[in-house]
Amino acid sequence: MLKQIAKLQEGKVKCGGMIDTIRDKKNIQFVILKDASGKIQLTVDKVSYPEVGEVFSHLLPGATVEVEGNLVLSEYVKMGGKEILVESVNVTSTAEASPITEDTSIDQRIDYRWIDLRSQKNLLMFKVQTLVQQCFREFLIERDFIEIHSPKLIGAASESGSDVFEVKYFDTKAYLAQSPQFYKQMAIAGGFGRVFECGAVFRAEKSHSRKHATEFTGFDLEFSGIESYKDIMVMEEELLEYTLRKLKDKYGEEISQIFGVSIVVPKLPFPRIKLADLYAELESLYGYTIPESERDDMTTEAEKLCKQYAMGKFGHEFIFVTDFGARKRAFYHLRENGIPQGYDLVWKGMEITTGAQREHRYEILKSQAREIGLEKDVEFYLQFFKYGCPPHGGFGLGLDRFMINLLDLNIKEVQFVFRGPDRLTP
Amino acid sequence: MLKQIAKLQEGKVKCGGMIDTIRDKKNIQFVILKDASGKIQLTVDKVSYPEVGEVFSHLLPGATVEVEGNLVLSEYVKMGGKEILVESVNVTSTAEASPITEDTSIDQRIDYRWIDLRSQKNLLMFKVQTLVQQCFREFLIERDFIEIHSPKLIGAASESGSDVFEVKYFDTKAYLAQSPQFYKQMAIAGGFGRVFECGAVFRAEKSHSRKHATEFTGFDLEFSGIESYKDIMVMEEELLEYTLRKLKDKYGEEISQIFGVSIVVPKLPFPRIKLADLYAELESLYGYTIPESERDDMTTEAEKLCKQYAMGKFGHEFIFVTDFGARKRAFYHLRENGIPQGYDLVWKGMEITTGAQREHRYEILKSQAREIGLEKDVEFYLQFFKYGCPPHGGFGLGLDRFMINLLDLNIKEVQFVFRGPDRLTP
Repeated sequence: MLKQIAKLQEGKVKCGGMIDTIRDKKNIQFVILKDASGKIQLTVDKVSYPEVGEVFSHLLPGATVEVEGNLVLSEYVKMGGKEILVESVNVTSTAEASPITEDTSIDQRIDYRWIDLRSQKNLLMFKVQTLVQQCFREFLIERDFIEIHSPKLIGAASESGSDVFEVKYFDTKAYLAQSPQFYKQMAIAGGFGRVFECGAVFRAEKSHSRKHATEFTGFDLEFSGIESYKDIMVMEEELLEYTLRKLKDKYGEEISQIFGVSIVVPKLPFPRIKLADLYAELESLYGYTIPESERDDMTTEAEKLCKQYAMGKFGHEFIFVTDFGARKRAFYHLRENGIPQGYDLVWKGMEITTGAQREHRYEILKSQAREIGLEKDVEFYLQFFKYGCPPHGGFGLGLDRFMINLLDLNIKEVQFVFRGPDRLTP
Repeated sequence: MLKQIAKLQEGKVKCGGMIDTIRDKKNIQFVILKDASGKIQLTVDKVSYPEVGEVFSHLLPGATVEVEGNLVLSEYVKMGGKEILVESVNVTSTAEASPITEDTSIDQRIDYRWIDLRSQKNLLMFKVQTLVQQCFREFLIERDFIEIHSPKLIGAASESGSDVFEVKYFDTKAYLAQSPQFYKQMAIAGGFGRVFECGAVFRAEKSHSRKHATEFTGFDLEFSGIESYKDIMVMEEELLEYTLRKLKDKYGEEISQIFGVSIVVPKLPFPRIKLADLYAELESLYGYTIPESERDDMTTEAEKLCKQYAMGKFGHEFIFVTDFGARKRAFYHLRENGIPQGYDLVWKGMEITTGAQREHRYEILKSQAREIGLEKDVEFYLQFFKYGCPPHGGFGLGLDRFMINLLDLNIKEVQFVFRGPDRLTP
């Protein structure tokens, strides 16, 4: 890899990579060669090595080559202070002219995502995402979580019943899972104690927003041995603190240079507020009045105001909001005195997680499903609780949404290949 | 967690878990309480604590409780040598009688998978699988691999064109990805250098075998900077050696006790043999004659014979088989003198991987697709190579298949929830 080449002593070297740029002067060519690890300058003396110059004069950025030459120190070169004086070249693949630049619109860039991915921004973004997942998993495995892969093909439309994709399954129909929620809980009923899953989830929504996609990567976890949903908030804030600290250490500077975003390691514990108290605060501080009919849930407007509220009052990017109205929360959230025992976590003015203690008692769960007419639809799920299940809870954190918030991007930019109602390619 | 309880000093303790077994005697009850971390014995003195005894006398295995009591040393108890003399109990969930036992057929057990998962075998299996994935990722991230999540919803039937599930996608159709193959390569064209993915893959096959499912978990990787497919074999054998070594360290003994399987840390390098040479050996050693028409590929029979051959000749569980016939390998494998530059890896008589260097040159790739009439179908994929792509290769390793081979089980046993042509529940 090129980062290793730059560390070598001066002398003969051999390396390969993709052409980033070529400057073709009268007697000399300057070629920037890159790979995922870094860049190095190739210098071609066209007078001494006319056949090498001839080869490079026909190549465009994107072409890949292997070169041999002399690695030398050079005061003119920024990257590692070294360049390779090329003596021979072998073209491993040619390239047509790129139909896009970094200024092309995001929709057109996605048409050519394999070229778009070559930008420094995108490479860094996926290195960062790799580390995010590594930290999540490290943290959880350290705490005895078991990794599962729940089925994406399911026999009955799950959770909400709407917005679900239908699959032709031999002589019958299947549906694509909207979340691993029911299956995480199945593992808990199965005595697994603590589980997590990272995998594809599907939503047949015709939304075109900064954060909606028809397919994305969910990071979900569930665990038993809890006293209340407060244990889940603690698990989540510690997970995020751990991850953001490692991220800042490894990529903080690069992220700040390339995305202009400063990574903040959050203080523990994160601030917590009840929804009703939040609305009182938003009204007194910003004159935001919540319509009576929307008091049970958080409005998008209120979500956004959380950013300045959390920062102003607590000097914090995150805030947990609790005590939502029961009719706005999933039927499987455990209730105490009618109040769902869960929370939303808002980060920089965007909800990134819903977490809750789940109702684990068969009869109560069944009656909560019945209240909203779902008893029949979720019959298979209710069975999981008939043969015993310990108290438990968990949360789901969209990996894409985490990246959107972390780097202040939109869903089309953060997904490896975006999927929306009008987008099935490449 | 119970494993922590057992380590405490004698004295008052509080803990929760699921009831594994109850023995209800005249004056005393012995209850085994368990969670994912371990088991502990509860002893109830019905004479001194009649109300506690009354509670337990109505509970069945599967019910979950929280108890308080006195942790004491006991010479009669195997597990940790300690028991809890229970003073109070709180039932957190009741349980109906289990409709299955460990002797019930696997198909019926899957009907009640959430109960079936409670067996010691299944718990261990998923702990082992968690470690397998952790090792795979650790090994790859250490070597600068980037993790990707490629789309599962795709616009065109991929790779082979057959055996693909169709999805109703708003006013059009989508298909479920059979593998991340094309998208891993897209990342390579995008300059990512080294990538891996762990995620769901789908096959609309009506097969009922020990190793077939309609949905399973693929572990796929792809990397550039290679000289030939031999670099890929080295990456794979090192990855497997690393993983099996860690597995043996952590779970070797438990696996041997519970599954009767001994984990062997393989010697490096793994043996390698050309397919034609393998057939010559199988003929001379075991009288196995390969029909002329099947010489280009490995038959199931030959795959099985590899077990005794590799063990007999090399003292090895693994063997790489190379130099297959071109018409039996995917069109995107790079060929040299007509020979596909790839391999199958056979472990204990079952193929677990196909790996290869890929054809990265647009014109040659296009002509190889044309040869088998796929040029139009894979048009979108061919585009990835038009704007330059470095030489690269990789392999895919089914996580489920790895577990099947590791523990000598079948696919229905190793999947968290099995999916087959006749199985969409639970």
